Amino acid sequence: MSIDATHDPARRSWVESANTDATDFPVQNLPLGVFARAERPGEWRCGVAIGDMVLDLAVAAEQELLPAFGPQKFRGPLNTFMAQAPSRWRALRHAVSDLLSIGGANAARAQAMADALLVRQDAVTMRVPADIGDYTDFYASVYHATNVGSMFRPDNPLLPNYKWVPIGYHGRASSIVPSGAAVRRPVGQVSPNPNGPPTVGPSARLDYEVEIGAWIGGENALGVPVAISRAPERLFGITLLNDWSARDVQAWEYQPLGPFLAKNFASTVSPWIVTMDALAPFRAPAFARPGEDPAPLPYLHDPLDQAEGGLAISVECWIRSARMRTEGMAPVRLSEGSSRDLYWTFAQMVAHHGSNGCNLRPGDLIGSGTVSGAEKGSRGCLLELCWRGTEPVTLPTGETRSFLADGDEVTLRGRAHANGYRSIGFGECAGVILPAVGQE
Amino acid sequence: MSIDATHDPARRSWVESANTDATDFPVQNLPLGVFARAERPGEWRCGVAIGDMVLDLAVAAEQELLPAFGPQKFRGPLNTFMAQAPSRWRALRHAVSDLLSIGGANAARAQAMADALLVRQDAVTMRVPADIGDYTDFYASVYHATNVGSMFRPDNPLLPNYKWVPIGYHGRASSIVPSGAAVRRPVGQVSPNPNGPPTVGPSARLDYEVEIGAWIGGENALGVPVAISRAPERLFGITLLNDWSARDVQAWEYQPLGPFLAKNFASTVSPWIVTMDALAPFRAPAFARPGEDPAPLPYLHDPLDQAEGGLAISVECWIRSARMRTEGMAPVRLSEGSSRDLYWTFAQMVAHHGSNGCNLRPGDLIGSGTVSGAEKGSRGCLLELCWRGTEPVTLPTGETRSFLADGDEVTLRGRAHANGYRSIGFGECAGVILPAVGQE
Repeated sequence: MSIDATHDPARRSWVESANTDATDFPVQNLPLGVFARAERPGEWRCGVAIGDMVLDLAVAAEQELLPAFGPQKFRGPLNTFMAQAPSRWRALRHAVSDLLSIGGANAARAQAMADALLVRQDAVTMRVPADIGDYTDFYASVYHATNVGSMFRPDNPLLPNYKWVPIGYHGRASSIVPSGAAVRRPVGQVSPNPNGPPTVGPSARLDYEVEIGAWIGGENALGVPVAISRAPERLFGITLLNDWSARDVQAWEYQPLGPFLAKNFASTVSPWIVTMDALAPFRAPAFARPGEDPAPLPYLHDPLDQAEGGLAISVECWIRSARMRTEGMAPVRLSEGSSRDLYWTFAQMVAHHGSNGCNLRPGDLIGSGTVSGAEKGSRGCLLELCWRGTEPVTLPTGETRSFLADGDEVTLRGRAHANGYRSIGFGECAGVILPAVGQE
Repeated sequence: MSIDATHDPARRSWVESANTDATDFPVQNLPLGVFARAERPGEWRCGVAIGDMVLDLAVAAEQELLPAFGPQKFRGPLNTFMAQAPSRWRALRHAVSDLLSIGGANAARAQAMADALLVRQDAVTMRVPADIGDYTDFYASVYHATNVGSMFRPDNPLLPNYKWVPIGYHGRASSIVPSGAAVRRPVGQVSPNPNGPPTVGPSARLDYEVEIGAWIGGENALGVPVAISRAPERLFGITLLNDWSARDVQAWEYQPLGPFLAKNFASTVSPWIVTMDALAPFRAPAFARPGEDPAPLPYLHDPLDQAEGGLAISVECWIRSARMRTEGMAPVRLSEGSSRDLYWTFAQMVAHHGSNGCNLRPGDLIGSGTVSGAEKGSRGCLLELCWRGTEPVTLPTGETRSFLADGDEVTLRGRAHANGYRSIGFGECAGVILPAVGQE
């Protein structure tokens, strides 16, 4: 992870759409994803987003445009590539930058065969970029933890372990879907009275959670901890993540073992993984702990991680109701948060996760937990934004929302900014709510 | 799941070791597992345990001894087979029973090529029988929940949701290991004071948990709930499961999102899956709820499941310390519990898990939670058995245990009994504790 010529803001691509200010995918980004062409559904290939196109890495390798990478590679999910050494990830970034940049080593040859190498993003289907062995969700925003805690425990909003332990739990891998997949409102047990009895029905408090997802590369053998100094090389890249949540189900079920059916009906990821190498210019100091907070314990403390283990990524949440779509209205923005507000860095989450010898495998997914900041406009879920239903938001149609309604479309967008560098984005992480089973 | 000729207690095998009273694997059992021969490590094949031998299903299929099953099958993990219809599972049981029973349709041919078909169990390596997509652990023993709750909340041992919700949470798939794999004592944050500050070191309260594991077959699409009436056909079979737990880590980390590093360093499964068909004679009524308990909610209630959704499986836990091994002593039994003490049936756990549309995939693993009964001798973990360290057990060497010591070997054994039927077993679920990293 260092800044090099691939980050040069003067670099431009011969793929014209990559040179607009609006694009998430300039030649400085080069995120990886897995796609299928419309005419060959289910034939998954690895690709790189460039402007509004996808570079087909399988074709590039076959055409010997990626000399260091054999022709067999770049089919199917990214796990095999994630298992390789970070030097290989970097080598691919350099090779692809050379292919796609004006004046790059292989650019002229690539441009001559552009029709074979490139396909429009709107003509492909994207899948979840890796087969996810395990999905772990953290709780790394101290603002989110404090807000939610204060609703349930006004006297004691933040539990005593929070500033010592990067709190996390295991989530469901099978129900992680790519952006664009519809999400069915879950049915579940809910109880207005904390002592029961419960009723069963469609969740009436369906929520989104704005999160940042980190994909794991490499593998530590079971029983071998991950040192904080080695944790950065276990981070392959970043996507956006929406951890849909049924708050009424959660409130009734979560004690004593944590959230279960309130969360495992669906989580949505953006399909393009922005690599840690692409994010090198957007590193930031770790969270500035107030003086009264404890320092991270030694296994979570690394001077380099403290200096630049954070990331300067802003994440927005947009909503569009069914009626807004019918009336041709654009989505409206509900919030904008920043990964700078995470109390723990991803390296700290990885080092904590591996501190007991738990084996993290290539393609594992780690969620940050809801990204919320100190200001109301930065709260990353409706539970917080509408303060448990007491402060509804009003949409341009006059409709109000405290939680999600059927037909609501929620879209996350992310962007990394740094002075002197080309800003890069993450693409969309979107999903629309379908009515509960039997309610259509 | 019905009783048929394969359960006939008079049936005997031409594999002599299958006809002893002591064997877990008479011809009435026929559990499935995945093994590699010593001379071909890593070449995984599906097999059936019979006495002290393994029937190599890949060879049997190649030799056309399983006419309904093509020769391509039975390599690698069992997921592909678990994805097939329950009628196929049953067809294989019948075909194998015919192969291995004296007088069976293909028995003479099979016996003639016994050298190719059979390999000794002590000459093979077993792996986890399926690639586990997701692992979910429940909390289905009301005795365990009450015991543990009473230690932490004496006034309110059982939470209000317990008798309504089959409480469960997602565990770690990557760290599930087969019987015989050593387990390294985890290092973690612990805090003697509930408000902190914590210290970091090897867990001093390492424990086992005696559980029963259920393997999922078939798949429900995401968003499509599993009806309780269809849940039994989603159960492929049963193994033993030891959900190793670091109690001191758990106490400090588990709020508010549940157990994480306290559990995800290792879980051990027995390598042979006893199919639900094999268990047909050992079905039992669901837990007899006391009159004051609520009836299961409609989505968890099925008359047939109430009548025979339980299982009559006894599970024992045995321990042998390093010193006991050195002195040539046999293991001693710590406890014997019964699956009859589970408040929820596995069908109820599956129906609950799928009630929100969560997709369960072939090869997913569900744990029962610690199997504990009303009597002290049936408590399935040291936390309960030694009542949080206040009632240590004494080993034949004079050593005492409140929690596990390095070098301790813990072995689970299970057995299903029913009048008029041949008793069947589960093989061993064993692991020995290695010292923490850096403590050897």
